[in-house]
Amino acid sequence: MRAPTLRNKQFIIEELPDPIPSEGQILVKTRACGICGTDLHARLYGQKLRESAARTNGFGANFCDGVVLGHEFCAEVVDHGPRTSKRLKPGTLVCSLPRLVEDNRRFGIGWSLKGTGGYGEYMKLTEGFSFPVPNGLSADHAALTEPMAIGYHAVKKARLGKRDVPLVIGCGPVGLAVIASLKLMEARPIVAADFSPRRRKFAESLGADVIVNPAETSPYERWADVAAIDPPDETPNPQTWFQPPTHNPAVVFECVGVPGILNQVISTVPRDTRVVVVGYCMETDHLDPIFALDKELNLQYVMGYNPNEFNATLHHIADGRIPVEELITTKVGLGGIAQAFEDLASPERHGKIIIEPSIS
Amino acid sequence: MRAPTLRNKQFIIEELPDPIPSEGQILVKTRACGICGTDLHARLYGQKLRESAARTNGFGANFCDGVVLGHEFCAEVVDHGPRTSKRLKPGTLVCSLPRLVEDNRRFGIGWSLKGTGGYGEYMKLTEGFSFPVPNGLSADHAALTEPMAIGYHAVKKARLGKRDVPLVIGCGPVGLAVIASLKLMEARPIVAADFSPRRRKFAESLGADVIVNPAETSPYERWADVAAIDPPDETPNPQTWFQPPTHNPAVVFECVGVPGILNQVISTVPRDTRVVVVGYCMETDHLDPIFALDKELNLQYVMGYNPNEFNATLHHIADGRIPVEELITTKVGLGGIAQAFEDLASPERHGKIIIEPSIS
Repeated sequence: MRAPTLRNKQFIIEELPDPIPSEGQILVKTRACGICGTDLHARLYGQKLRESAARTNGFGANFCDGVVLGHEFCAEVVDHGPRTSKRLKPGTLVCSLPRLVEDNRRFGIGWSLKGTGGYGEYMKLTEGFSFPVPNGLSADHAALTEPMAIGYHAVKKARLGKRDVPLVIGCGPVGLAVIASLKLMEARPIVAADFSPRRRKFAESLGADVIVNPAETSPYERWADVAAIDPPDETPNPQTWFQPPTHNPAVVFECVGVPGILNQVISTVPRDTRVVVVGYCMETDHLDPIFALDKELNLQYVMGYNPNEFNATLHHIADGRIPVEELITTKVGLGGIAQAFEDLASPERHGKIIIEPSIS
Repeated sequence: MRAPTLRNKQFIIEELPDPIPSEGQILVKTRACGICGTDLHARLYGQKLRESAARTNGFGANFCDGVVLGHEFCAEVVDHGPRTSKRLKPGTLVCSLPRLVEDNRRFGIGWSLKGTGGYGEYMKLTEGFSFPVPNGLSADHAALTEPMAIGYHAVKKARLGKRDVPLVIGCGPVGLAVIASLKLMEARPIVAADFSPRRRKFAESLGADVIVNPAETSPYERWADVAAIDPPDETPNPQTWFQPPTHNPAVVFECVGVPGILNQVISTVPRDTRVVVVGYCMETDHLDPIFALDKELNLQYVMGYNPNEFNATLHHIADGRIPVEELITTKVGLGGIAQAFEDLASPERHGKIIIEPSIS
């Protein structure tokens, strides 16, 4: 098969042997694959990502030299390996969690040498982690399942109460996925902030109610306006310990993932705020714990999704309840990947770029 | 009144004007007051504490020059200010939350110039935040209400489930208070760790079930032994996403509060652990978020207590359900404070030192 192999920070289109599905695996032909922010990092900082991942045993990323990237994909079933149920007939469009089970271990698909990713023409997938695309949904839209599932999982983990008012910090792909699932779960008003005009526009199309440019307005002050309880239920009385709340509860989704952001969040949010940390910050960060202690903050770190959440996200996209169409701004073939990576360096040029290996 | 005033890191016993209770306040005579770890910090790093507190609006500490320390006290009612209910008769022993309401604002008692603390002979207290000592409990034991309430609040905030197995990191006064409330709330087995033999002994007397010396054994490995589910409910199957749990859920109470400890905790605990951060770390700390992200950890920062929790703690001490007797290792008068501060620098010499201004 043809596959753009990452070698020394360059994509080299090589002819690789077609994958051969092992026990419990299916062989699929890639129909569409999104470019993830992690892929951009992987190209430039693969070794560093590998070292980070080696310190934990969770993510298990191995963006090594020779890897075929791509973990946001939709593909067509071609064949079945041994010990499979064969419930997914050849020709069926599927989305799969990017985890390959082989030799009783799990490997990343699109971030390990065992599991070549969706930038290549063919892949092996784990049958049990693969779901048929329902409702005649197109492959390019279905390929948005993986990034959208990250937001769906994050919002599920937040266990929102009826009065909670969410604030989304950062409207890159992760923040947008969070906004889409907040909208789906009928949280409102959704306050969202990003410096990029293009991203603020995407936030709007996905359902954010109040959109802030942090260069002009503090997102936290804007949140406070929106979440204010007016008029208050009773007059504050300093002789009484429990004071009437002046705001509905805050749930902040940190979707930036660079050092310093979380400290800015905890220094600024009100007492008892729950912070859901979705942005994947790979560097050592500094925090001033006094902010979190004095305000009794709760930090819920999240990552990924489970198969139920992944499949639910796919169905919500198919039903039109998670709108992804506007996010896809262009499609490229294998030869267009290098340029696409350049273009994605600016948040203004593109939303999602979809790779279709069939485009010549 | 006589009061040991903190001036230039020294305690100067001065003759101060007797406090005059304002609206909603009562005048009390101090009977017993504990020395808190924060007091030790306040003597040496008062200015730094003040700067930390100024960055938040919560704790509001002002350990300035001229302050009279002492926020862990039991006192006897002497008189009532204007606009008080007078429900607490003169002679009644009371414990109070160390917060003084004056001019519609709150000030720390024992950490501001407005609210002289329990190291002095007399204090003003907020009537609404004061509770009568029940059951003939002695003043020195009642003075342990404040530090014990910190543990009570932390354990309440943890919302322990039946299968949760707690691990307490650090058995100083905060860790011991947590252990006492874990025992009270029938969490078990309680695993606790401290480098100090004396503190491990206190941990045992307060109800810890498994006590670890981290110089010999990893507390996290010991926890894993204790929390293991044996035999597991089913055989792991890598083709299935959800694997059978091998341990009961972990709830770790971080009770050390120095930089580096929290990162050690998050790098070592298992997936889905809830960390309750009770140790009050006043310095900027560093964290590697990948550990928390990859394991989807939850960090609940806590501080203080509310009046209900404070009063409940007082009653639990009076009922003997929170045993404090062994913690009190000596009592001193005002002249003994300077030496007591020296002695408390080592964890081996003392548990709680109680100041009784009546001791000459």
